[in-house]
Amino acid sequence: MESIITLTTDFGLKDAYQGVMKGVILGINPYVRIVDVTHLISPGNILECAYILRDAYSFFPDGTIHVGVVDPGVGGRRKPILIETGRHFFIGPDNGIFSLAADKKDIRRVIELKNREYFLKETSNTFHGRDIFAPVAGHLSLGADPEEFGEEIAGALSIEVPVPEKKGDTITGSIVHADSFGNLITDIRKEDVADAACEVEVKGRMIAPISKTYSSVGKGEVLALISSSNFLEIAVNGGSASAVLGAAPGDRVAVRIRRG
Amino acid sequence: MESIITLTTDFGLKDAYQGVMKGVILGINPYVRIVDVTHLISPGNILECAYILRDAYSFFPDGTIHVGVVDPGVGGRRKPILIETGRHFFIGPDNGIFSLAADKKDIRRVIELKNREYFLKETSNTFHGRDIFAPVAGHLSLGADPEEFGEEIAGALSIEVPVPEKKGDTITGSIVHADSFGNLITDIRKEDVADAACEVEVKGRMIAPISKTYSSVGKGEVLALISSSNFLEIAVNGGSASAVLGAAPGDRVAVRIRRG
Amino acid sequence: MESIITLTTDFGLKDAYQGVMKGVILGINPYVRIVDVTHLISPGNILECAYILRDAYSFFPDGTIHVGVVDPGVGGRRKPILIETGRHFFIGPDNGIFSLAADKKDIRRVIELKNREYFLKETSNTFHGRDIFAPVAGHLSLGADPEEFGEEIAGALSIEVPVPEKKGDTITGSIVHADSFGNLITDIRKEDVADAACEVEVKGRMIAPISKTYSSVGKGEVLALISSSNFLEIAVNGGSASAVLGAAPGDRVAVRIRRG
Repeated sequence: MESIITLTTDFGLKDAYQGVMKGVILGINPYVRIVDVTHLISPGNILECAYILRDAYSFFPDGTIHVGVVDPGVGGRRKPILIETGRHFFIGPDNGIFSLAADKKDIRRVIELKNREYFLKETSNTFHGRDIFAPVAGHLSLGADPEEFGEEIAGALSIEVPVPEKKGDTITGSIVHADSFGNLITDIRKEDVADAACEVEVKGRMIAPISKTYSSVGKGEVLALISSSNFLEIAVNGGSASAVLGAAPGDRVAVRIRRG
Repeated sequence: MESIITLTTDFGLKDAYQGVMKGVILGINPYVRIVDVTHLISPGNILECAYILRDAYSFFPDGTIHVGVVDPGVGGRRKPILIETGRHFFIGPDNGIFSLAADKKDIRRVIELKNREYFLKETSNTFHGRDIFAPVAGHLSLGADPEEFGEEIAGALSIEVPVPEKKGDTITGSIVHADSFGNLITDIRKEDVADAACEVEVKGRMIAPISKTYSSVGKGEVLALISSSNFLEIAVNGGSASAVLGAAPGDRVAVRIRRG
Repeated sequence: MESIITLTTDFGLKDAYQGVMKGVILGINPYVRIVDVTHLISPGNILECAYILRDAYSFFPDGTIHVGVVDPGVGGRRKPILIETGRHFFIGPDNGIFSLAADKKDIRRVIELKNREYFLKETSNTFHGRDIFAPVAGHLSLGADPEEFGEEIAGALSIEVPVPEKKGDTITGSIVHADSFGNLITDIRKEDVADAACEVEVKGRMIAPISKTYSSVGKGEVLALISSSNFLEIAVNGGSASAVLGAAPGDRVAVRIRRG
């Protein structure tokens, strides 16, 4: 079957870990397409993985199987799970990495992976990506019913994410991601800054108005615009806002709506 | 259709940007093969992208669709284009990244991408790789006629590349790329140094003669040889010429032909 | 044919080298699946490549073709070879990179690649990955007989790997790999430390007992456990053992069996 499996991990690219997962998957379903979302999540950073998956998953076709392995508790008490939503599947540890992508409203069922028939014969305590998640994804891509892999459970773990605060004309949020260009993505939604004259404050600097494109300002200048995932983004035309502003995930960003 | 799409970008591998482009492409054509050329072009470096594509594209089969996204002007006035040559297609921003690969003599037509039916429904101002270039590449791989995507225009933008200068017995060129081994690739062609006793000068150091292989000299020694793309290359056996010589793209290299 | 070719190189991801190999392969067999094991082997590090291939190859299905290119002697006297074992094929330079994966007992035949009909028309002296190994792998994946590529030779080069020493109740081995998490993988086998109360000494620190999972100890604490490849591993829960201990490949690790 020509289905798609995506991989999102903190395994890095120096070792064979991600390649070995693909070997296991292709040994089960030689026709599946495997796409790397990224293997460079910061080691053990569940929140970063959750944001990456939130922004990526919906651009894949219906039926795509998303395997996520940021798994600091591997081999311990956290459960290995499969989440089925209306359009997608998510397979990995139940530690919150899927909680921004697999919205509670959309979840049809959550299965705890227990059926060892679908695991590798020997399962290690340190690499469930290879021993459990890859083979389960392979079998699911062949058309196995989610219930074959284990028992339905009440739900999946959600992580707490700070939500921007609105007070009068001011919205206060925070930077949630610095991408490899040094663009700073916030948690303030497009709807909250669109169609309005806004002033953005970050690291003591005032930025106004919201620009349309990176090249709306001069080379090396700081700007604010709407990110490709529809959040407020702070950038530098031809440079790194992260470096220029000394800003990082967690830093506070405020938007003031100026009423005319 | 079993065609091939290659991706060459400055998106890095830490974020989901390249993965999302693949999701969009596979949603349109689940059978296409997608190959990463690289996603580690230095941010916004159009010249570096042009050199990488020049050396890579011809090793892919006829009909391959090369998507390039080094796009500092995204959302601004630069045009999104499709270039058709005798053997290949190139899709991306019209900023010169294709000008060393898609030789003027070979270009059959250049189309400005205008038909929004082939774009994602919502197009951002910051990620045309996902919203325009990926879906156009997907539809082209299914056999769409290039003219369906927009209007033919007079040509594509070319970037100025310095050309080596010949004066008497001396050719003076420059380093155009340092690869990840630290090998220094120049713009001096094989034909200009082959079949001749040559002396190479770089960073005040004299190197002679031209070697056949890296191991023609002792470990740690500097050598000159012909690169796999048929240009003069400066290397260190078992080491990094970039580090040993403190040399970088832009640095001058001179070759003197010694006549017997 | 839907076979699989894996790639393991020190080419890095900044250049087009790995992409070009895929272009050559797909030009010969458009249906083959290509999987990157890694392209981030330290430049020229044959031993590191040998360990990576040893731990990865067996997770791929029967018939998989493993191309390895860590090739400091490219263009020189080392032979280009194809190794056929009971289940897999290995293609690359005869410098020892396959000697831990392709066990002598399993080797059916070793072919020196000599038949230029299966190479690219022009072969460089610096990039046999593109000119020899990729096209040979492509043709082999189409079903060519290994003997078509050249002449059978007596065997492949083996590299010397230090073996742990047992003296009384003590086994002394060494760290052979630090993965991207900073986990330190040793050459001491699971069988030698399992089912026994053991004390591990590394960098002057004593670790006991052997843990089951990373989270068996507190955050930031050093532990010893069994790696996913069944060797003794030194790790830090939620951190990098490499950084915390200042340890690296080559460092000595001792295990003392404590008898009740």
